[in-house]
Amino acid sequence: MTKIAILTSGGDAPGMNAAIRAIVHSAQHNQYDCIGFFHGYNGLLNDEWQTLTHRDVANVLQFGGTILKSARCRAMCEPQGPKQAVNTLRKHQIDALIVIGGDGSFRGLEAIKAHWEGQVIGLPGTIDNDLAGTDNTIGFATAVTTATHAIDKIRDTANAFERVFIVEVMGRHSGHIAFHVGLATGAEAILSFENCDSADTKQQLDRLINQIQVQQQYNHDSFVIVLAENLWPGGPQALKAQLAEQADIESAVCVLGHIQRGGSPAPEDRLLATELGLEAVNAVTDNRTGIMIGKQGTALHDVPLSHAINAAKPVDARWIKAQHDVLTEYLVKHRK
Amino acid sequence: MTKIAILTSGGDAPGMNAAIRAIVHSAQHNQYDCIGFFHGYNGLLNDEWQTLTHRDVANVLQFGGTILKSARCRAMCEPQGPKQAVNTLRKHQIDALIVIGGDGSFRGLEAIKAHWEGQVIGLPGTIDNDLAGTDNTIGFATAVTTATHAIDKIRDTANAFERVFIVEVMGRHSGHIAFHVGLATGAEAILSFENCDSADTKQQLDRLINQIQVQQQYNHDSFVIVLAENLWPGGPQALKAQLAEQADIESAVCVLGHIQRGGSPAPEDRLLATELGLEAVNAVTDNRTGIMIGKQGTALHDVPLSHAINAAKPVDARWIKAQHDVLTEYLVKHRK
Amino acid sequence: MTKIAILTSGGDAPGMNAAIRAIVHSAQHNQYDCIGFFHGYNGLLNDEWQTLTHRDVANVLQFGGTILKSARCRAMCEPQGPKQAVNTLRKHQIDALIVIGGDGSFRGLEAIKAHWEGQVIGLPGTIDNDLAGTDNTIGFATAVTTATHAIDKIRDTANAFERVFIVEVMGRHSGHIAFHVGLATGAEAILSFENCDSADTKQQLDRLINQIQVQQQYNHDSFVIVLAENLWPGGPQALKAQLAEQADIESAVCVLGHIQRGGSPAPEDRLLATELGLEAVNAVTDNRTGIMIGKQGTALHDVPLSHAINAAKPVDARWIKAQHDVLTEYLVKHRK
Amino acid sequence: MTKIAILTSGGDAPGMNAAIRAIVHSAQHNQYDCIGFFHGYNGLLNDEWQTLTHRDVANVLQFGGTILKSARCRAMCEPQGPKQAVNTLRKHQIDALIVIGGDGSFRGLEAIKAHWEGQVIGLPGTIDNDLAGTDNTIGFATAVTTATHAIDKIRDTANAFERVFIVEVMGRHSGHIAFHVGLATGAEAILSFENCDSADTKQQLDRLINQIQVQQQYNHDSFVIVLAENLWPGGPQALKAQLAEQADIESAVCVLGHIQRGGSPAPEDRLLATELGLEAVNAVTDNRTGIMIGKQGTALHDVPLSHAINAAKPVDARWIKAQHDVLTEYLVKHRK
Repeated sequence: MTKIAILTSGGDAPGMNAAIRAIVHSAQHNQYDCIGFFHGYNGLLNDEWQTLTHRDVANVLQFGGTILKSARCRAMCEPQGPKQAVNTLRKHQIDALIVIGGDGSFRGLEAIKAHWEGQVIGLPGTIDNDLAGTDNTIGFATAVTTATHAIDKIRDTANAFERVFIVEVMGRHSGHIAFHVGLATGAEAILSFENCDSADTKQQLDRLINQIQVQQQYNHDSFVIVLAENLWPGGPQALKAQLAEQADIESAVCVLGHIQRGGSPAPEDRLLATELGLEAVNAVTDNRTGIMIGKQGTALHDVPLSHAINAAKPVDARWIKAQHDVLTEYLVKHRK
Repeated sequence: MTKIAILTSGGDAPGMNAAIRAIVHSAQHNQYDCIGFFHGYNGLLNDEWQTLTHRDVANVLQFGGTILKSARCRAMCEPQGPKQAVNTLRKHQIDALIVIGGDGSFRGLEAIKAHWEGQVIGLPGTIDNDLAGTDNTIGFATAVTTATHAIDKIRDTANAFERVFIVEVMGRHSGHIAFHVGLATGAEAILSFENCDSADTKQQLDRLINQIQVQQQYNHDSFVIVLAENLWPGGPQALKAQLAEQADIESAVCVLGHIQRGGSPAPEDRLLATELGLEAVNAVTDNRTGIMIGKQGTALHDVPLSHAINAAKPVDARWIKAQHDVLTEYLVKHRK
Repeated sequence: MTKIAILTSGGDAPGMNAAIRAIVHSAQHNQYDCIGFFHGYNGLLNDEWQTLTHRDVANVLQFGGTILKSARCRAMCEPQGPKQAVNTLRKHQIDALIVIGGDGSFRGLEAIKAHWEGQVIGLPGTIDNDLAGTDNTIGFATAVTTATHAIDKIRDTANAFERVFIVEVMGRHSGHIAFHVGLATGAEAILSFENCDSADTKQQLDRLINQIQVQQQYNHDSFVIVLAENLWPGGPQALKAQLAEQADIESAVCVLGHIQRGGSPAPEDRLLATELGLEAVNAVTDNRTGIMIGKQGTALHDVPLSHAINAAKPVDARWIKAQHDVLTEYLVKHRK
Repeated sequence: MTKIAILTSGGDAPGMNAAIRAIVHSAQHNQYDCIGFFHGYNGLLNDEWQTLTHRDVANVLQFGGTILKSARCRAMCEPQGPKQAVNTLRKHQIDALIVIGGDGSFRGLEAIKAHWEGQVIGLPGTIDNDLAGTDNTIGFATAVTTATHAIDKIRDTANAFERVFIVEVMGRHSGHIAFHVGLATGAEAILSFENCDSADTKQQLDRLINQIQVQQQYNHDSFVIVLAENLWPGGPQALKAQLAEQADIESAVCVLGHIQRGGSPAPEDRLLATELGLEAVNAVTDNRTGIMIGKQGTALHDVPLSHAINAAKPVDARWIKAQHDVLTEYLVKHRK
């Protein structure tokens, strides 16, 4: 009888539970056995696991986090790690390993594949949406939703005080969250890797200051800057200090942080996770391996793991253009 | 100077304000004038309007409803209506009319087009997602989100009581909301136009009763039926009565109703509305007419109004299949 | 060693889990044993139970519903029921029974007390807030919050259409929810037991129609009527029909229903449940019995069960007066 | 004709709009005129104002922020400020000034009173709940709600990673938010002014480390520390560093920040603001002055401004005790 192992790895992302549930249900339809390893790859190294049946995944799809726990696992980057993982997989007579995680997790999958005859299948699970071959990753929609509603709240107080806010959002080294959230909240500025050269912050700063000053002349209520994490040297506090020093502009800083990782998954993430989970079991049946299941438009398809990891996943140029186009005229006019 | 008129018509949908804002901002970039008519087509018939500048659309994208109000307008279905509307458009020297609404609203646009030399452009704005040529309509994502979170709450009490709930969701005559919400909430049954023949409810009822009874044997916590509005003869109360009469199954009814139309738009709707609004102004510049702007995958494109209105927009077959696949094995086994 | 039994009974209410958690934690501090019976009094009749330790109540306080399940139990109203319950309590050598529920649940407690030497303690758990001796019951704040945010959404669409809405809220036979929600949403009318004689609906209807017509003259956006369930003969649909027939006023009906019972408990309910749960264990220690723990102002105190059940708990007159005072002048002027 | 002026001052708080609305409506009932000054006391100094009628306060009670804007105003602390404010009040023939704000705002009121014959009335509006003479201030319930739901989200990711989180909440120099939020989220530790001597952080740190280590032995999922702002020398980042250095405990920091100030007000804040606003107009009628309107239990009463400002408003001892009692036994056992 076919036996599937599941684990969640790396930063947790809302919707991981919905993916686990879909895999378990579909496995049962196919009369496959299913077990889950805990704490990411650590569960494989430490042989920590449980059987998964539909009872174990009842009432989990509406919750954030992951019932299998997650973790980063340094041992998987060392030569012994993957081999030990393979030993555990063989011991349990696993036919296919499905990992829900990001690029680091997929590197682990590739390392296992080098030593193992079973199938390895990845599902894109990260709030950062930085995996090539899929429009969205599981967790991205929820992170965007949470950050959007947080900035809606900040907008209230920013308007009341006619104040400048610098709001840092997550995204690791990409601006998917920054652009989606910035556009969804009507942010007056988005500073991200795609439109801001962090090696030349002087020019960016001049431009930003000019924009704020122009707006203040026009008596606009508030000015929200959405800032991608890891972009600005010194972070948002440095930017705040520079605005104050260079142009006497007072501002407040909010770092949204880990609230973006949790919470009940947005319906979009539940649906994506469900589709991808079901397709992962189809991939097991079809004997496909070395792949991530991705979704582009309305079509599911296989993405070689190496492509998912290594190919660039740039923010769509139309979002960058849109941010330009929705700025009020006077901001644009004075922008260059 | 080019002059654009905007109106929102038919059932209001969260995100309409974001669309208006994007049109106004982009119009200003292009140095076009912009006015809005109130109360749907009634504003054209009664010449009720205001100029729209960026100040009028500040701080609106995060709110549901529509700052231009909406309404249904019977007079537009009579011969005189469109002619009177055209008079108003001529009086104001309008070059292009952009209407955000559903199929009824687009019929009005076509009627105007028959009498008018200006451009007519539609944006798909309806929670029901029943317009062909676009994956999603403005408002659909928010309606799905609201209904999903409502059923999450109902699930709490359903679990506490191990109870059967019949939850009616909106959608007019299509099951887009029903299937998205049903899958996102893990509903045990979805009854919609696509999988349920309302002319033969007897068979459906037998199947549903069987499913509930099987689950009760397996001691599952609760049983949620998502029911599309306008499907079941007599509505959810009739279904409740039939479950009681035929199989002594007690159930509770919730009709989610108009909460699905309101609320702060989901980020997805704000983004879709922004993209479509910007593209509508591009269409004005390019002298395109008789179209709805649609989005499929990540691409925007023109859809002839007649196609948007008349072509079928079926629920994707993969959702219907997914609903089958995520049901627990014992439910499926006994389902036929 | 002292041994406490807990059960939740009647309509579930958000915060019940927080109460269970507080009892279990405090019991452990006092080195008392703790068990929970399932499905309300049915668990006592069927001897269905589990031991409760801090592990069982980890990560439950933020969730609605009840981990002990709830149910109504007709057998407790018959002579044999309470006796059988007492047998189970004796079999497990229970010293104190803590029941979280409403008046029906407390009647069960009194019946048990008549046959049993152990302590019986009630905690007020019902969304309806209809128990005397406590300002608020567990679940009330959450129900008010859910209904308030639902009507906020309805207000969006009501404003867009300048429309009359009739929104039915829960509350059994009292107007606590209706008045709190009506005031919190700025409802133009609240129809509840306290300000509306259901035996003379004619006069109420005339007044309401007058109010709506006056407002329509003043061109106000929308008109929301908050209607207490079980008040209007024929329910909201009858009211809708009467408005149409008598005055040609079109309106839409929303019955908020069971969403008011579920959802993550409001902080206020979590805190109240925690306080009451801790005090219930103090009551066990102090050998108090036959009481409900209530909270008035910031003080906890014992309320005889009979008082909690039988005494009236009217809606505070200041809320009824407030509803009058926040109505716009022209509505009040024309109101009589 | 009696003429009332309103302004909102200091940190904005959700519910301020509901208070303004209630004042305006009640003023109209009494046939009083009403105007609002913008930007706190700056509006008085710069004579920036508008007339307020029921139209201006339609559809505002459900929104955060303040339609009158807010600001801090240094000029009011200088001798000329209050005199200039009084000139404006006289110019407009104001009979009573109602200020919604915190202690700094009330100091301004007192300074005006020293030079002016009109009535001065304060309403407690601050998320920090640090004003004596009232159980709660306007905005406090919303801040607690927002912070609670944010930590619920953080709990998801903390559980998935079995991780320690330090979450800083607002509160200026009091622990009202910290204790309410800590208890409502089941935080494993609350560090606030009331239970933590910031001059002796060494002892606190030892105790905290011990608690974390004990819990890790017991294999608890996650450990959330709610930290009051302005308490820990060096802030949450310093605490994080100390945990790492001294005990090799890895932790993550979240500073909830300004999201706690915004958002749609909780029903509790809308109701409190409505009651207080109505009573403020009663106070005008009754010629009361030099007071803040407070609410204790269910009773409204006058609090001398000096008392509201100067008297201590300690966190209720029962909350501090409750935090002890809901900790799991093993945490308590090892705590001393």
